[in-house]
Amino acid sequence: MNFNPGSVGVVAPQSIRFDAPLGLSSGAAIAGYSLTIETYGTLNADRSNAVLICHALNASHHVAGVYADEPAEVGWWDNMVGPGKPVDTDHFFVVGVNNLGSCFGSTGPMSIDPGTERPYGASFPVVTVEDWVNAQAQLADVLGITRWAAVMGGSLGGMQALSWTIQYPDRIAHCIAVASAPKLSAQNIAFNEVARTAIRSDPDFHGGNYYAHATVPRRGLRVARMIGHITYLSGEDMAEKFGRAMREADYQFHYEIEFEVERYLRYQGDKFSEYFDANTYLLITRALDYFDPAKSTGGDLVAAIAPARAKFLLVAFTTDWRFPPARSREIVEALIDNGREVAYAEIDAPHGHDAFLLDDMRYHRVVRAYFDNIAREIDA
Amino acid sequence: MNFNPGSVGVVAPQSIRFDAPLGLSSGAAIAGYSLTIETYGTLNADRSNAVLICHALNASHHVAGVYADEPAEVGWWDNMVGPGKPVDTDHFFVVGVNNLGSCFGSTGPMSIDPGTERPYGASFPVVTVEDWVNAQAQLADVLGITRWAAVMGGSLGGMQALSWTIQYPDRIAHCIAVASAPKLSAQNIAFNEVARTAIRSDPDFHGGNYYAHATVPRRGLRVARMIGHITYLSGEDMAEKFGRAMREADYQFHYEIEFEVERYLRYQGDKFSEYFDANTYLLITRALDYFDPAKSTGGDLVAAIAPARAKFLLVAFTTDWRFPPARSREIVEALIDNGREVAYAEIDAPHGHDAFLLDDMRYHRVVRAYFDNIAREIDA
Repeated sequence: MNFNPGSVGVVAPQSIRFDAPLGLSSGAAIAGYSLTIETYGTLNADRSNAVLICHALNASHHVAGVYADEPAEVGWWDNMVGPGKPVDTDHFFVVGVNNLGSCFGSTGPMSIDPGTERPYGASFPVVTVEDWVNAQAQLADVLGITRWAAVMGGSLGGMQALSWTIQYPDRIAHCIAVASAPKLSAQNIAFNEVARTAIRSDPDFHGGNYYAHATVPRRGLRVARMIGHITYLSGEDMAEKFGRAMREADYQFHYEIEFEVERYLRYQGDKFSEYFDANTYLLITRALDYFDPAKSTGGDLVAAIAPARAKFLLVAFTTDWRFPPARSREIVEALIDNGREVAYAEIDAPHGHDAFLLDDMRYHRVVRAYFDNIAREIDA
Repeated sequence: MNFNPGSVGVVAPQSIRFDAPLGLSSGAAIAGYSLTIETYGTLNADRSNAVLICHALNASHHVAGVYADEPAEVGWWDNMVGPGKPVDTDHFFVVGVNNLGSCFGSTGPMSIDPGTERPYGASFPVVTVEDWVNAQAQLADVLGITRWAAVMGGSLGGMQALSWTIQYPDRIAHCIAVASAPKLSAQNIAFNEVARTAIRSDPDFHGGNYYAHATVPRRGLRVARMIGHITYLSGEDMAEKFGRAMREADYQFHYEIEFEVERYLRYQGDKFSEYFDANTYLLITRALDYFDPAKSTGGDLVAAIAPARAKFLLVAFTTDWRFPPARSREIVEALIDNGREVAYAEIDAPHGHDAFLLDDMRYHRVVRAYFDNIAREIDA
């Protein structure tokens, strides 16, 4: 098997079981649960080189490398994590974790509820970013990691990294939040709500208990993903990639695919609806809606972030209209007001929100330089 | 009955029948059709004071005033059209027309196909902005209007006004296009495609022949309208109107309404799905997609607009991210390159695309001043 230079190579997920109940923000508790993880690199003797990578809406623990039986399924942040890459697995022990409620192996709505011996479905509790971080802290305990060298994520992943600094200030040395925000805007919530409405109003949704009906609300998932994709790309990027390019030389005067952008969206929607769980889509978008650390401090982000002791790198992309640079700057300013150390890079990139996943030399150089400094701190 | 100052008062629609077949851009023809119209003010003796108002996606011929039996149903541009208003019905004879394929009285997918004696449904031909303008020209013939003093519209309505100047350069003296664009961007098309997918994948759509099944694809229409509303408002406006305001004092941890913005979108979606025809939604969004006068000139808008002889007023709104000012400026520049007279106002308004429908003193003063000049030209 050939790997890209810097690939972590063939990897395998592990499932970690937690038998103690986990109390949730909602007041509910989950009796016991599993998290699926992957690790790359080697934990050093004093366990000081561990980096946690948090995923966003549709990603998973599979951050880097490939599976032996699925060589095309490259990890979602493989350009970022690997030997010699910005998050260098020759220096760091990197952990990818699938969050509670997701659909890639960790306990979620598709899992069997031990109480009923049927899939949780609609009865799976609503979870929050804070709940995920609490579960990730239990994972850190199992792995023997008292303090992360860094917690890193993009978008919703960045929110988890930020929440780590508030919930467990002594257990995180560095927070790297890329293309993130301190809370969703009304417009962000609105897009989530439309996607959820598409899913919940699909007759195959059956109130979330579609597993029992052997159906999948594919139509709703497809629409949800199409909406998502529009918000992940910038208008400029869509203009550049697709413009008004057509499938045929001239208009066909029908509602099938006329424009390449339609083909792209349909393809993305169809693909997504084949593998993503609809209840997970609801759950994760709701966690996004709810994230608002300043909610408990009367809207005061400076006060909300006050407990943080980590150092920070924030990165934002100029054409990201989902979480524009102004949203990252809100965090930067609240950190500065708290006298915290914060580096901030605003990358002039054309690819909108998706830029956090893409190869961009300037972006990757910033992250690499930051992690090189973390490595030096660890070695010192 | 009390009217707002400047209201045209109680109005009544009329239906105008056209028996001659209308050839369409697609190559198809419609055997005969009706257009529903309203008129306000009085046509002067030399028929030189007629103004045509063109509607966008979900509006109609009901531009101003109220119906005797529906006093709450005020026309969609009532703040613009009436005695003493920017388009002053004391001076102008104003015509509102429901376009071919729409669902407010003119012949459209809900109408009975004389060939089958059943509703057209999916068999209603795809129509274009150019087809609408051709039908409007037939209407002008019936009304005895050789040349419009002005054709005016916002958004898609502005596209019709622009198309008049190209298709019938001798029959339009002034073109007023507000919050418009010379063609859709890839992102614009993408939003339309998601809305259409929501409608077409609703099981109640039945391939467009839902009338025969006594169903309405309400779920799809609801999602389509919710998406639309997000694009009509600016992010700033949504933040101002809703922010993260919640229905209850604290999170309820469910997928029902938590945030006021969710309530707003659901309300708008529900209301729309009660009155709007799904096939019309497809047809009008497709007409939007297809509009591109420069398509026949190899993408050269300057060449496409060269036939125009009208004078122009273009208005755009700073926070309109659906058709931002840059899109209006493309038209302005193409007109300048053709040596045409063009006035352009860029209004610093917070309300996004919807601003074209709202009261805004600066916007209305620009339109009023422009129409005052038209009135002087007519009187001269």
